[in-house]
Amino acid sequence: MCGIVGYVGKNQAQSVLIEGLSKLEYRGYDSAGVAILDGERINVMKCKGRLAKLEEKLNKEPLEGRVGIGHTRWATHGEPSDMNSHPHSNYEGTISVVHNGIIENYVHLREWLVSKGYRFVSDTDTEVIPHLVDYYYDGDLLDAVMKATAKLEGSYAIGVICSKEPDKVVAVRKDSPLIAGVGDGEAFVASDVPAILNHTRDVYYLDDKEFVVLSKDGVEIYSAEGEKIEKKLNHVTWDANAAEKDGFEHFMMKEIYEQPKAIRDTMISRVMPNEPIKLDDIKITKEQLESIQKIYIVACGTAYHAGIVGKYVIERLARIPVEVDIASEFRYRNPIIDNKTLMIVISQSGETADTLAALREAKVHGARVIAITNVVGSTVSREADDVLYTWAGPEIAVASTKAYTTQLITMYMLALFFAQNRNTITKEEAESIKNDMLELPERAKKMLEQKEVLQKFASKTYMYKDMFFLGRGLDYAVAMEGSLKLKEISYIHSEAYAGGELKHGTIALIEDGTIVVALATQTDLYEKMISNIREVTTRGAKVLGFTVEGNTDMEKAVDSVLYVPKINNILLPVLTVIPLQLLAYYMSVQKGCDVDKPRNLAKSVTVE
Amino acid sequence: MCGIVGYVGKNQAQSVLIEGLSKLEYRGYDSAGVAILDGERINVMKCKGRLAKLEEKLNKEPLEGRVGIGHTRWATHGEPSDMNSHPHSNYEGTISVVHNGIIENYVHLREWLVSKGYRFVSDTDTEVIPHLVDYYYDGDLLDAVMKATAKLEGSYAIGVICSKEPDKVVAVRKDSPLIAGVGDGEAFVASDVPAILNHTRDVYYLDDKEFVVLSKDGVEIYSAEGEKIEKKLNHVTWDANAAEKDGFEHFMMKEIYEQPKAIRDTMISRVMPNEPIKLDDIKITKEQLESIQKIYIVACGTAYHAGIVGKYVIERLARIPVEVDIASEFRYRNPIIDNKTLMIVISQSGETADTLAALREAKVHGARVIAITNVVGSTVSREADDVLYTWAGPEIAVASTKAYTTQLITMYMLALFFAQNRNTITKEEAESIKNDMLELPERAKKMLEQKEVLQKFASKTYMYKDMFFLGRGLDYAVAMEGSLKLKEISYIHSEAYAGGELKHGTIALIEDGTIVVALATQTDLYEKMISNIREVTTRGAKVLGFTVEGNTDMEKAVDSVLYVPKINNILLPVLTVIPLQLLAYYMSVQKGCDVDKPRNLAKSVTVE
Repeated sequence: MCGIVGYVGKNQAQSVLIEGLSKLEYRGYDSAGVAILDGERINVMKCKGRLAKLEEKLNKEPLEGRVGIGHTRWATHGEPSDMNSHPHSNYEGTISVVHNGIIENYVHLREWLVSKGYRFVSDTDTEVIPHLVDYYYDGDLLDAVMKATAKLEGSYAIGVICSKEPDKVVAVRKDSPLIAGVGDGEAFVASDVPAILNHTRDVYYLDDKEFVVLSKDGVEIYSAEGEKIEKKLNHVTWDANAAEKDGFEHFMMKEIYEQPKAIRDTMISRVMPNEPIKLDDIKITKEQLESIQKIYIVACGTAYHAGIVGKYVIERLARIPVEVDIASEFRYRNPIIDNKTLMIVISQSGETADTLAALREAKVHGARVIAITNVVGSTVSREADDVLYTWAGPEIAVASTKAYTTQLITMYMLALFFAQNRNTITKEEAESIKNDMLELPERAKKMLEQKEVLQKFASKTYMYKDMFFLGRGLDYAVAMEGSLKLKEISYIHSEAYAGGELKHGTIALIEDGTIVVALATQTDLYEKMISNIREVTTRGAKVLGFTVEGNTDMEKAVDSVLYVPKINNILLPVLTVIPLQLLAYYMSVQKGCDVDKPRNLAKSVTVE
Repeated sequence: MCGIVGYVGKNQAQSVLIEGLSKLEYRGYDSAGVAILDGERINVMKCKGRLAKLEEKLNKEPLEGRVGIGHTRWATHGEPSDMNSHPHSNYEGTISVVHNGIIENYVHLREWLVSKGYRFVSDTDTEVIPHLVDYYYDGDLLDAVMKATAKLEGSYAIGVICSKEPDKVVAVRKDSPLIAGVGDGEAFVASDVPAILNHTRDVYYLDDKEFVVLSKDGVEIYSAEGEKIEKKLNHVTWDANAAEKDGFEHFMMKEIYEQPKAIRDTMISRVMPNEPIKLDDIKITKEQLESIQKIYIVACGTAYHAGIVGKYVIERLARIPVEVDIASEFRYRNPIIDNKTLMIVISQSGETADTLAALREAKVHGARVIAITNVVGSTVSREADDVLYTWAGPEIAVASTKAYTTQLITMYMLALFFAQNRNTITKEEAESIKNDMLELPERAKKMLEQKEVLQKFASKTYMYKDMFFLGRGLDYAVAMEGSLKLKEISYIHSEAYAGGELKHGTIALIEDGTIVVALATQTDLYEKMISNIREVTTRGAKVLGFTVEGNTDMEKAVDSVLYVPKINNILLPVLTVIPLQLLAYYMSVQKGCDVDKPRNLAKSVTVE
């Protein structure tokens, strides 16, 4: 869960690396560092803290040179400190390494290297790599890196420089993301495309165990056997500006406001009146779909919450049994999978390590895999049988917003697609749902207009340490997502509960003044939910209620009410979550937290 | 979620009612009251607060009479207050009613009664009942109660007295528990058997819409059509002393210590070496079992956590796909059920309203239902196709302990039973698991010996407001139960997380000094879990770790370690949960909470 970048070319490496790292800071930001070759020696500057701190130091003492590597860190082995920051070097300082991932056998390797006389200065797993490269170095850096990585178990994307070969960067990946870019007289590697987008749009998507050598003449790619590989060079068409904040104070608010557009974009050419759902990227046939007896939806965090909505709608519309699981749990419980199983994985980044591992596990057992991701060319998208992209655009804020709502849209589209292929709903019902879906962008805009209510509620409640979210059915799924948002960026200990389950234990926590957000948007569950709300108000809770327009009697049961429009109940999560995102946002702002980069979190979780 | 009791006989009603209510206080205890007929008039005494407060008042001003009804309340409609306490009466005070349940159409009925000139004094749903009985009363109380209850929607167990018929109590149930008892010259009704056990062991288990008339000559039972019904009189063989505290300060501790015996009792004549698992109560045939394609396990609260373990072990041993669901969620999501579906419901009391509703829903769709319950003759046990009792004995503390561990035992027995019928495990594997199971009682005793460690840990951490429980796989299931225990009785906001999922958001809550209980007992997941523990210790968390004997290297990763014995991994939840129960207990004691009767909770949740 770190970001790495490497550069060889005509410009000063320092500014290219720092700029690249600034685009990767969403991957981790507890420390940062660069190593730059001045033609003879490697000079390293690194420190604990945000990238800005490193930049400050470099501004005072710039490092000269046109070859270098950089790193922005999210701690796994060894707490954030100057010493544990990357790059790490060998004792003589002739070899430097940046690394994203986890070396699982580092204890063993470290002992072995110590027995050979190597001395270690950090607590990191990474430090074994420069020593290993040193051990194998015999005048050929690529060869030494190949031999060193052959000893590594775990996941890595690494960049290596060596003062004895002062004109190149060697890099390789396994189970951690890495791309390479080619410019005019310069070459790049990076964990993600935005890091280099200001310099080039010509990109290689690297696969596991492909080695790259950067020089000012470009990029050479080798297999683990040392054979040269010809890969397709891709031209990236994204708009680099799309990753800027526009006029918003934070990326998160910008992305919350981008939701109407993201929802519309995700439906383009797929959801149309009087036509069946068209998912051109999905190659699965009608016959294959008919043979499916079970669907697993596997994901982590926010994407997992989208999966829970997916279960409801797929079971409801297509009548296929669906099981949703947390990716890190799924693969270790020996799930029952065969070739009649379909797996849907959801990952915004397409690099989530747990999700990727679950995908691979399912494929080993013969299941077909559909990936839902926001990142074209991501590992998940390449390894799945079918890919359905959310067209949300780059999401920079660590707390996911537009990725979630567009994931919901893909869930509806898939459910309708399955249903039309299995004839489990009528044309009329499908038309009615599609028509309501096409209205979602406008409805989402209306939800944004209610932001003052949330801002006001946040200003009165931000000092509370605990909060509860209640809902039944689809509202429970949305409650989970609302609660997670609040936790992530405001550090308030919130928890989501199924309305009917609260009384089986957790209601003991409700006391005078406890803040509860109660969702009661689902028609069938409204009365039951009002009863559950009374259980908490009777015990003194202050309740912010959500329901559909027209249910004005809720105003008697709670302290304040927020209304969502009357549309097909299954689509309401897309709208209900928006005020919850706004609530979390304003709570975080009120508390003075770092909205876009909450403590301890990283955008793309590429370790298990 | 209240308790009711009724008496007609040779003794003073007051003492019989109070004694009965004291045995029902586990059902609710926010207010209490009695109505006693002195031969001419009904005298009512009721107040907010524990039963002891009512008793105090009655000691000062005793109520004379040999006919009466009593109530102990857990508020649903109308907050706890003197006025909202039961019994409720008509305006003239000639009719009094006690009620357990929820009248769903009370708003409508109230409006109608007001239009007829009736005046209401409380906020309760119950108060419509005495007025309705008054409206229909024409010289025959039974007839009036029949007519009144025909108007009620919702759930109820009610007891009614009328000063114009001063020698009887009329009672009826629908979807709330009620039993009747016959003594020598006296008769009883009550929500549960222990309430009358000091007076009689001869008991009728009433079914929905059966009306009873108590007189000193005994009990008469009528159908809703007014026809007399002959029912089987059951003789209860329990030991009334089994429901006392022995030498322990609290029922909960007594019940924690009863676990070795409860575990052993639950296996008696079912788990034996060199013989297949014998479940005489389960009538399902080998052929029926072979046709099962899907199992749903449905339950609430602690029983739901036992179900999660059930899913793991049934899928693992019998390779049948299992879905676990919260009962209040299950019935409203239109689940895919047919006659190839088996449903397992788990409810300690056998009266849990949500679970019962799910059971009925499944039966409508043709599923076969196996009930796991601790209460013989409970509604769940009567409505299921098969019953597997946990022989835990009466559980009085609201926070469930021995019911949970014995529910786990039934999960293992069922999984082995399914596996042996479907030939999915070898005889050797089955023998090995059974042998380890038979050692569980002794191993559980050993776990109890570690109580000082937990007491010490609690004394250092009880003032914390938040706490996290982490685990992977079966440890995650146990973490959920450990977290719920802590919430229920110590009011600490704790939450359980899957070890690998924490980093997808909730890790933002971890800061310097956060208390984490980390379970790492599962061999396959040990290394991954240690990595997850490092993620939180790196961020300053203080960790109490659990692992199996021999994994002493954990001591380097956490602040203190508690060891569980090395036995078959799937059985470890039974042992791991014991120290978590003790931890919750000591936290509660340290905080000075009411261990056995935590605020807001009731033992048997008979409303949705």
